[in-house]
Amino acid sequence: MLKYQKIALEIARHITENLQQKDKLPVIETLISHFKVSKSTIIKALKVLEDKGIIYMVRGSGIFVRGEGRKEYYNLLGVNELLEDASDNRYDLLEIMEMKRINALPEVTNALRLEKTAKVYSVKYVYYLDKQVTCLEQVFLSQKIISNLDEEIALKPIWEYIKDVLGIKMGFPDIYVNVDKLNAEEASFFGLNAGDPMLCKEIIYHLVNGQPFCYSKAVYHYKQARFFLKVNSPN
Amino acid sequence: MLKYQKIALEIARHITENLQQKDKLPVIETLISHFKVSKSTIIKALKVLEDKGIIYMVRGSGIFVRGEGRKEYYNLLGVNELLEDASDNRYDLLEIMEMKRINALPEVTNALRLEKTAKVYSVKYVYYLDKQVTCLEQVFLSQKIISNLDEEIALKPIWEYIKDVLGIKMGFPDIYVNVDKLNAEEASFFGLNAGDPMLCKEIIYHLVNGQPFCYSKAVYHYKQARFFLKVNSPN
Repeated sequence: MLKYQKIALEIARHITENLQQKDKLPVIETLISHFKVSKSTIIKALKVLEDKGIIYMVRGSGIFVRGEGRKEYYNLLGVNELLEDASDNRYDLLEIMEMKRINALPEVTNALRLEKTAKVYSVKYVYYLDKQVTCLEQVFLSQKIISNLDEEIALKPIWEYIKDVLGIKMGFPDIYVNVDKLNAEEASFFGLNAGDPMLCKEIIYHLVNGQPFCYSKAVYHYKQARFFLKVNSPN
Repeated sequence: MLKYQKIALEIARHITENLQQKDKLPVIETLISHFKVSKSTIIKALKVLEDKGIIYMVRGSGIFVRGEGRKEYYNLLGVNELLEDASDNRYDLLEIMEMKRINALPEVTNALRLEKTAKVYSVKYVYYLDKQVTCLEQVFLSQKIISNLDEEIALKPIWEYIKDVLGIKMGFPDIYVNVDKLNAEEASFFGLNAGDPMLCKEIIYHLVNGQPFCYSKAVYHYKQARFFLKVNSPN
């Protein structure tokens, strides 16, 4: 972890433990002398916190705590690693229902930009909360990037494996959200009726060089389909 | 519009008109001599394009076109003013169904951080596409910020009014998404049945000083509830 990332983490923890929405942070000069680093390092750390929606900066006025948003909603971008207590408590149990190597269907070769005859790993997950199914996820992994998938790997966050084992940095994700009716098979998992609402969240993860390597399709129980997104001020 | 914003716009137009996903942009030095500006101005312009999900930068390798994402999906963050052709074609007609000053309910005073006795403007909009209702929106505006709402103002984008008339800059929005069943009244607007799916998107807009001033609740026909979000690489 780089210096500015450590500082961002420390400030984020301080905010979670001690501060509330609209509270003011010390001025930049105070942060510089407290952390004993350069101004540019502090600016970088603050930029991380701004990007994560943890602070907002008002020119000529100061740095303020943005507040966490609604408790019963989940970060659309996934877990915010700077706020561990806001971790994904959407589920308390995760199971792999099926894991196999398959011929990729067109929607998968499109998403992962693979040739038509490509094979991919397909992993189906079930997420439970209080013994109720809250989410069904199917993940497709490009064999070019991940060549030896097993249960242990499949149960870890994919970016951890990419970073720690393959030494490749994660790039940008594309996220798609749509709403539809549950089909009979999905409904039976959720204990709902066919035709009941569902939210489908698709994510295409890219490596830092722009290559897509992981395509996830997750269907949520409509009562757990609550997401928030903190956007930055427009440029 | 500032210099770097103009350059960002020009590059965005060039990309839309001439380039495709994964195409490479000229190196920074070429952009500097083409636009005849400083390196820091080019960097700022590229940062805008990266934040909007239009380009991605690979250290040591270059600047690449990110691609537009799925056509039939809409930007969760609203219209991207750098890509005019990707404008919000979710509706072809917008009507104001009701506009009045009301005593704010608790969910509104909470969202806008107003005292319990505050009055707000409430505007109900109906969005049509091909003569079908695609979205019902109710917007609550803080009277502290907008004191003389009329139809003309209510039909313009709120940030335009805030900027041009009041001279205040928009700050960050908080976005909430959830899924539920339509009630009978909503369903009758959409020509659907009570119990059919809907997506509800709430946005709380803040001024640049962190004060919330506009709270929007929009219910979408589930067949039009398709959003995309292009996220940046993690820090």
